[in-house]
Amino acid sequence: MKKAEPRTLAGFMELMPNEQILFNQMKEKIQKTYEKFGFLPLDTPILELSEVLLAKAGGETEKQIYRFEKGDTDISMRFDLTVPLAKYVAKNYGNLSFPFRRYQIGKVYRGEKAQKGRFREFYQCDIDIIGDGELGLINDAEIPSVIYHLIKELGFEDFTICINNRKILNGLYASLNQEKNATEILRIIDKIEKIGKQAVKEELNKLGLEEIQINQILEFIEIEGTTDEKIGKLENLGIQNEQYQTGVAELKEVIKNIRLFGVPDTNFKVDLTIARGLDYYTGTVYETFLNNYRELGSVCSGGRYENLAEYYTDKKLPGVGISIGLTRLFYKLNELNVIHASKKSIAEILIIPMVEDLEQPIVLATKLRNAGINTEIYLNDKKLKAKFKYADKLKIPYVIVIGEDEIKTQTIKLKNMETGEEKELPLEENSILEELKK
Amino acid sequence: MKKAEPRTLAGFMELMPNEQILFNQMKEKIQKTYEKFGFLPLDTPILELSEVLLAKAGGETEKQIYRFEKGDTDISMRFDLTVPLAKYVAKNYGNLSFPFRRYQIGKVYRGEKAQKGRFREFYQCDIDIIGDGELGLINDAEIPSVIYHLIKELGFEDFTICINNRKILNGLYASLNQEKNATEILRIIDKIEKIGKQAVKEELNKLGLEEIQINQILEFIEIEGTTDEKIGKLENLGIQNEQYQTGVAELKEVIKNIRLFGVPDTNFKVDLTIARGLDYYTGTVYETFLNNYRELGSVCSGGRYENLAEYYTDKKLPGVGISIGLTRLFYKLNELNVIHASKKSIAEILIIPMVEDLEQPIVLATKLRNAGINTEIYLNDKKLKAKFKYADKLKIPYVIVIGEDEIKTQTIKLKNMETGEEKELPLEENSILEELKK
Repeated sequence: MKKAEPRTLAGFMELMPNEQILFNQMKEKIQKTYEKFGFLPLDTPILELSEVLLAKAGGETEKQIYRFEKGDTDISMRFDLTVPLAKYVAKNYGNLSFPFRRYQIGKVYRGEKAQKGRFREFYQCDIDIIGDGELGLINDAEIPSVIYHLIKELGFEDFTICINNRKILNGLYASLNQEKNATEILRIIDKIEKIGKQAVKEELNKLGLEEIQINQILEFIEIEGTTDEKIGKLENLGIQNEQYQTGVAELKEVIKNIRLFGVPDTNFKVDLTIARGLDYYTGTVYETFLNNYRELGSVCSGGRYENLAEYYTDKKLPGVGISIGLTRLFYKLNELNVIHASKKSIAEILIIPMVEDLEQPIVLATKLRNAGINTEIYLNDKKLKAKFKYADKLKIPYVIVIGEDEIKTQTIKLKNMETGEEKELPLEENSILEELKK
Repeated sequence: MKKAEPRTLAGFMELMPNEQILFNQMKEKIQKTYEKFGFLPLDTPILELSEVLLAKAGGETEKQIYRFEKGDTDISMRFDLTVPLAKYVAKNYGNLSFPFRRYQIGKVYRGEKAQKGRFREFYQCDIDIIGDGELGLINDAEIPSVIYHLIKELGFEDFTICINNRKILNGLYASLNQEKNATEILRIIDKIEKIGKQAVKEELNKLGLEEIQINQILEFIEIEGTTDEKIGKLENLGIQNEQYQTGVAELKEVIKNIRLFGVPDTNFKVDLTIARGLDYYTGTVYETFLNNYRELGSVCSGGRYENLAEYYTDKKLPGVGISIGLTRLFYKLNELNVIHASKKSIAEILIIPMVEDLEQPIVLATKLRNAGINTEIYLNDKKLKAKFKYADKLKIPYVIVIGEDEIKTQTIKLKNMETGEEKELPLEENSILEELKK
């Protein structure tokens, strides 16, 4: 028979079981943290009508979309979880309770240029809080507290949640009579960490800004000091623009409430350079950096938007949310070897029967499972050595061999595969369970 | 602005949050049961190269596939989890430990005719045990024990795992000199429950079978009695075909071992009518019925196959596995109103602040979360009544209101939303945690 080569598409992550265990643990930690804050689960289809999914899209995004026809239907694969959320809320508006707090963890698709560490299928892990007509500013402070608990849960202590407010930036540019260039300036400023101060100056100059304006902007984004000092300086810059002043007041309020939510000052800061998703966010914006792994870029980003679903409904639905690109984050952290599974295997015990009559091994396995212990029986006919090698490769922490002797004496040895230690115990589940508890 | 209508594609399930909670609980129960038996997680891409995914497919399946081109690449969406498994095992053969026991829970896609209760995107929940060259028959007995624990975990007691062996059927037809019609006869017999005995007779007659042969077949599939009586009758039918005899011996051995695995005789039986996936299974086959909801058809099916990945590799990879179509199962059971969430909400407590200064409500929420309790704070500015309505709609079981009085007296009332009962407690987490434990 002619064989097909068993290949996986380029840009699609497919893990070995031990990596998958680690990936799933990260995913589960994110889910549990979102649930800790009472966010509701959502699972929308991966396929949507193109006219629905692309009601807003355009430019780069649209080019990357997996889009096709099936029969007469023009279908697209989702490229984020925000547009499906907008559709969902607009569609089910009358049946939802607001504020609608939902999390969604699922795969999204972007046909990007294939590149190491870039994926065309990847998990996004999102939360959003959607208000009906209005949504209090206090919600902008709860989001960073979710980030804080989340990143700690993932095992990191040294990280910084960077916070800014788009109104401050927009107001500043308005005060410089640069409203028409605001988006472009934001885009350039956003790159300062990547391209450096001099290059930013040059790009702003090309945009037609005068040197005095450029210096004002740079002076502004370089405001230094503690969080409170920065706020003080922002308040005292003497910029009379109303949007600017609203932005500073919002930022001040959000900072106050972030502290109320118990996020320590060591884990957040005001960063006037971050702007994010240029035409989407309208107020508070967030980025999160692992300080020892800045090269990853922001690992958790988001912000406040005026109107979630304007492409579907006249209802005003303001919201605030964040997203984690889990697939890339996992890939990078795993490559750096800085994440490790809390449990390296699914089975906690491997029972190796070395007898014809499997009754006692099976009965023991069933009892251990009923007591909540993931237990596998090695059922194939192999030499003892091969069976131990299997336990070793799967990193199963405990092994019990049951042979004729063990049946006769009703005594087994519980072998700790990491230390090699063996503990003699009666062949019954309770003493094994007790030993495992230690 | 022109609005797009926020529609979801026909045949794609999209649940309201309370239903999603229930769905996720079912999915998690299945996952936990699979892990209890030590199956390893796998998460393959939803998209595959068409030449890989369709190496084997044909006929009906191929017509239903979502297939498209992106750039120069011919891509298909997976229509089951078995073909991706075959690809994965063939691709990673050298790096896997055998028997390779994996579970996969994920969405698959079939562009079937739209129909109530039929879905084009649905979750399959699969386990398979793959051997390298060979796989002991004992594995065929472990699978029903997984089914048994699984269906019980889903909350059902009255169910039957039906077991048969394809070799018995094939051998019987060979003994009747009907090998060439074997597949066709199997297909007809498989329908007996649906179309009745007389229609089966007619169809067999049309196939060219003589009345004596038809009667022999019907007599065979109508063999009655206890499991052991059926085995005895099968052994004593005097059919001299070798395949038949191997099949009966295998079935007898599997039945013996199913009992060893602790599955009670009330929850399984030999059913000589079931055949399943005509060109795939080669030995033991399973179907599972909820006896009070027979109309659902089999809720968990599978069997033994000779060779998982022959389209990709010369390596012989026999296996045994099962699959649950979760989306349809959930839909039907939910429609029948026979499944209920163990927890109806994500948040266990809603804290309702009725004060300006949110410090104490937030501190309490953080402490409860740190103690493992999913806790939401109602952060929007609404009347008390609206806040209680929110808790009620989300079915959050406990509510704590914190107003000026509560702050002054440092005493709160923990309200049980189901009973309406209120318990006065000090405003601190420990007494609340203790009360919840009761």
